[in-house]
Amino acid sequence: MSVSTTSRSIEHIYAEVQQFYARHMQLLDAGEAEEWAMTFTEDGVFAPPSLPEPIRGRANLAAGARKAAEERAAAGETHRHWQGMIAVDPRPDESLHVTCYTQVLVTPRNGSTRLHLMCVCRDVLVRENGRLLVRERRVTRDDRP
Amino acid sequence: MSVSTTSRSIEHIYAEVQQFYARHMQLLDAGEAEEWAMTFTEDGVFAPPSLPEPIRGRANLAAGARKAAEERAAAGETHRHWQGMIAVDPRPDESLHVTCYTQVLVTPRNGSTRLHLMCVCRDVLVRENGRLLVRERRVTRDDRP
Amino acid sequence: MSVSTTSRSIEHIYAEVQQFYARHMQLLDAGEAEEWAMTFTEDGVFAPPSLPEPIRGRANLAAGARKAAEERAAAGETHRHWQGMIAVDPRPDESLHVTCYTQVLVTPRNGSTRLHLMCVCRDVLVRENGRLLVRERRVTRDDRP
Repeated sequence: MSVSTTSRSIEHIYAEVQQFYARHMQLLDAGEAEEWAMTFTEDGVFAPPSLPEPIRGRANLAAGARKAAEERAAAGETHRHWQGMIAVDPRPDESLHVTCYTQVLVTPRNGSTRLHLMCVCRDVLVRENGRLLVRERRVTRDDRP
Repeated sequence: MSVSTTSRSIEHIYAEVQQFYARHMQLLDAGEAEEWAMTFTEDGVFAPPSLPEPIRGRANLAAGARKAAEERAAAGETHRHWQGMIAVDPRPDESLHVTCYTQVLVTPRNGSTRLHLMCVCRDVLVRENGRLLVRERRVTRDDRP
Repeated sequence: MSVSTTSRSIEHIYAEVQQFYARHMQLLDAGEAEEWAMTFTEDGVFAPPSLPEPIRGRANLAAGARKAAEERAAAGETHRHWQGMIAVDPRPDESLHVTCYTQVLVTPRNGSTRLHLMCVCRDVLVRENGRLLVRERRVTRDDRP
C-alpha cells in the first residue's frame, strides 16, 4: 500500500501546497511554459474563465502559456499570479482539494501596477512520484460572477 | 491537564492559523453569515474600524455579516478579505495573539477590482474542542491612522 | 557538528520563514528601524532597485529605514510590504535561498490605498543563534525589468 495523504501531517501538506504554488506561478510568470505544464498531470485540465472549453493535457497547457508569455512580452507587461487564503481539504483518495483566492497583477514597463483580476481558484492536486501536480483547475473571475 | 498550546510545534500552529483564516474569510465573503459567526467564540468580540462600538456575540456577528452580504448583493459587488504577513505569538494561557495585514478587495460586476481598504488585524485566537476560534478582533485602517 | 538546515523538516523551515517575514516587514512598516536592521546579519546587504549601490551593514540599514520612515510620516503615508508566493530552497551550507513576490502598498491619510510597486525579492537567509537573519537581499521592480 502506498502512503496515504492522511498519514501526512496538516503542517507538512500545507507547507508543500504553498511551496508548490509559489514555484508553479513563478514558472508561469517567467514564461517557462514547458516547465509550468509539467506541474500538471499528463492529462491535467485547466478551465480558465477566458476560454469556452478547458485546456487539456501538458502539450496544450504549454502552448497556451507560451502564447500568453509572447503576448505579454509584445505588450511590454509583466504578470504575477498570487495565490492566497489557501484552504486545503485532503481527501481519502489522497488528492487535495484546494480553494484559494488569486490576484493577477499586471505591470507595464515604466508604468503603474494594476490589479488586473481577482479570481477564485479551485484545484485538485494529486501526488505522483512524491511530487504534487495539478490534475484539475477551475478558475472563476469576481467580475463575471 | 489539557494539552498546552506550547506543546504544539510552531509549524503546526502556523499551518492551523493560515488554514483557519482561509476558511473564515471564504465563509464571510460567500455570505455564509451564520457559519462565519460560528468561527468566533460564543461571546466573541469584533471591533471593526467602521463602528463606534465593538460587535459582541455570535448572533450579532451573524446579523452584521448578513447585512453586509445583502448590501454587497444589492450593489452587485464581490468582496474578498485577504490576510497576509501573519505573525503568531503563542501565549502561556494557550491563546494565540496574531498580528497580520488585511487587504479588502472589491469587484463590481463587469467592473475593475479595487483595493478598497488596507488594514491591520489583531486577533486573539483560542482553541475550543480542538478548533481555533476568534475571541477578540481589533482592526485598524491605514487611511485612518 | 551543528544541526544542519536539511535536518529540519520543510514544514518547520517554511513556517519559520513566513513568520520571519511577517515580523521583519511589520518592523519596517512601523518605522522600527533599528529593530528591523537587527533582522539582517551584521554585514547584511540590501540591494534595492531604487539605489545605485547596495546598502551594507546594520548601521546603514537602520539609517536608511529611519530616513524612509521619516519621509512617510512627513507625507502622511502608511506603507506596507507584503511578501507572498514564497519559494524556499534550503542549501547544503544551511542557508535558505528564497524567491518571493513583494507588493508595496501605500495609503495616504484619508486617501485611497494604491499598489505602489510590484517586486521580486531574492533573499539569502542564514541562522545565527537559532534565529533567521537576512544576509543578502536583491529586489527588482516589475516596472523596470
